[in-house]
This record gives sequence, structure tokens and C-alpha cells, in this order.
Amino acid sequence: MLLCDIGNTSYHFLQIAESESSQTSYKESVKAFDPSTLHQEVFYICVNSKIQKELEQLGNWKNLGERINSEKYYETMGIDRVFACEAVDDGVIIDAGSAITVDVVDEGVFQGGFIYPGTKAMHKCYEDISPALAYDFNYALDTKQLAKNSQDAISYGYLKLLHNEVLSHQKKIYLTGGDATKLQNLFPEAIVNECLIFDGMRKIISQGL
Amino acid sequence: MLLCDIGNTSYHFLQIAESESSQTSYKESVKAFDPSTLHQEVFYICVNSKIQKELEQLGNWKNLGERINSEKYYETMGIDRVFACEAVDDGVIIDAGSAITVDVVDEGVFQGGFIYPGTKAMHKCYEDISPALAYDFNYALDTKQLAKNSQDAISYGYLKLLHNEVLSHQKKIYLTGGDATKLQNLFPEAIVNECLIFDGMRKIISQGL
Repeated sequence: MLLCDIGNTSYHFLQIAESESSQTSYKESVKAFDPSTLHQEVFYICVNSKIQKELEQLGNWKNLGERINSEKYYETMGIDRVFACEAVDDGVIIDAGSAITVDVVDEGVFQGGFIYPGTKAMHKCYEDISPALAYDFNYALDTKQLAKNSQDAISYGYLKLLHNEVLSHQKKIYLTGGDATKLQNLFPEAIVNECLIFDGMRKIISQGL
Repeated sequence: MLLCDIGNTSYHFLQIAESESSQTSYKESVKAFDPSTLHQEVFYICVNSKIQKELEQLGNWKNLGERINSEKYYETMGIDRVFACEAVDDGVIIDAGSAITVDVVDEGVFQGGFIYPGTKAMHKCYEDISPALAYDFNYALDTKQLAKNSQDAISYGYLKLLHNEVLSHQKKIYLTGGDATKLQNLFPEAIVNECLIFDGMRKIISQGL
């Protein structure tokens, strides 16, 4: 079975062996990859509307996004967030990419969420305010202490505030996305699962049409 | 008495009548203003090291920054933050400008603080991540509800997280800086004082050398 999570920069594939004994993940660039070169069945989700239109012309690309009960979510919510939520029955999901999305699911019901800047975007944001704030974040920050130096002052502003909010929901924490490992120190109790979106896709496939 | 708070873009003056019955505040641009054209005594603080060197050559400009016990604060802390802290005996001070600085003072002792992006910088940060996130912030956000639309999702990420942290210190809240009024809705219990830094300067002057 071939799964594909399509973002704005890449096609992220997961090839699962029929026996389910092995799986291989790889990426193709949105700019270079031609989806019509693939002839096997591909189950996909896609946040990129231009690519989605192309894929609708190809019979072997199956859009899993259509199988979601959209009333459970909100209209402009990214389909990647929706599938991460589908993978979890109860918990707080942190998807750390160019943005950090945080979503809360309570007994299978989406409660809402929020969007926070990703680590690169926030670093650039502080740098744009003043070159004196262009520090790397201190991911080993002591969140119990207000800051008394500039690096900790921006790290506390960015990380401690996120930490508090996530913990306030008192649920199991799931970490996914390209920057998941950066945030692991901040959420030592979190379950890191870089395949959470693919898990959601497999769950929807297993439920049939 | 003439006070001046010098930032990276402007000289912010406060002229106080001798009777203290009236005061006038005005700004001059850092690029256009020549401090040597003033001949009366000016008490100032300055975050701009280039301007500070110029002012040290002028006998009538008195640097109040020198009168602070620097051991109470940290080395790279902006002198404007220090003077806002000096104005308050006990409380959380939010200075909302190009950055939002938050500092906690407990019975006259600085406890530490943090730096968060200002409203313009954070708006640009979300916009740079994706044009789909280029919303104005909803300052009337219900901080008790997770977001279920894109505008509230970024507003919650930016404002609710700040709100939680500030309230967690369970102290009187002081709001100052150019964007203080924008945040008033979020902190209805806050004391808005656009002259907090000048209050700190007057307090230090009144203590003598």
C-alpha cells in the first residue's frame, strides 16, 4: 500500500509492505515530481489546491480527504491536522513544522486548536525585531524560572508559553512533524510519532468508504 | 523638568511644568533630531548605544541609567525595561512595542521576565509562514475556548498564551507602550499607564544621586 501526504514543498510517501512487516518513507519535491509517472494505487491527502486538481484527473490517486466527516472540523482547517486528529482518540497533538499546530481531541471529538509559529519562523521574527534578539532557542530552558538573560528571555517567551498551554489540557501529548525532536526536551512525557498523519490515513482506509 | 526616553526610532520627551500641574509629551525622530540644539537640562535613558556616546559629550544631558543598581537586573536587559520596573513596587509589567516585554517585580525586587513578539512582528511572522495565516488578530477572542476558525487559531496562539502566562503570576498588571490599548481588552483588569517609564525616571530623580 502506498500513502502520500502532500504539503506545499513535498510529497511525503509511505510504502507499506503487504505483510505490514516493513515500511519505507521518502519524499519528492513538489516542483520536480510528476504524479502521473506513478501507476499503482496511491492514497493521499493534500493541502495544496493546485496539485489536488491535477490529482483528480488521475484515476489511481485516491483522495482520503473526501472520506472525512467535515462537520467534525472547521472549513479552513488543514487536512494534515484533520488526519493527525483522526489518529488519536484522546490527547493533545503538536505538529511542529513551519507552523506549530496544536489540536485537542477528547474521546474522538475534536475540541479545537490553535496555530503558533514554527521554530524557524519565530527565530526570524525575533531577529527582525532586533539583531540583539537573534539567539538560538534554549530548548533545555528551565520553564519554572522567569528569564534573567536575553537568550532565555526569548526562549521563555516562545517555549514556556506553549508548554503551559499544552499542559493545561491535562491529556496525553503527541508530538509529530519535522521539528518534533526539537520539542522533545520541553515535553519529556510526550509520545513522539513522526507517522501520526499516516496512522490517521490508515485508520480511515481501514474503515472503508 | 525635561525627561527623554530614547529608543531606536525616536526621542520621546516629557516636559513637566515646574508646578507639576501640567505635562506635555512629544516625539522627535532619531534620524532628524540633533540633541545639541537643546540647552536646558535633560534627564534621559537610552537604548541606542551610538546616540548614548553622542550625549555623553553634551553636559546638559544627564544619563539616569547610571543611577541604577545594575545588580538588581541583568546585563543585556534594555534600560527602558529597567525603568518600567523601577516605577512599580509589585506587579507584572507588559510593555507592548515592537517587542512585548513582560517583567515581574515582587516587593521591589525584579524576578525576571521574558520577551514576546510585538503585534506587528507576530502578524508578519504568521504571514511569512503562509498567506493563508495573514489575518488581523482578534483582540476580543474568547480565551476560554480553543479555536475553530483560522483567525481565532492564530489569535489564540498569540494572545491566549500570553494571557495565561501573565495571569499565572497573580499580581497587579501594568500595561504600557505604544500597543497598550490593543491589549486592554485581553487584560481588562490591567492599569494602563503610557508614562510608566517616565514614572520610573521621576522616581530615580527624586531619590537624588
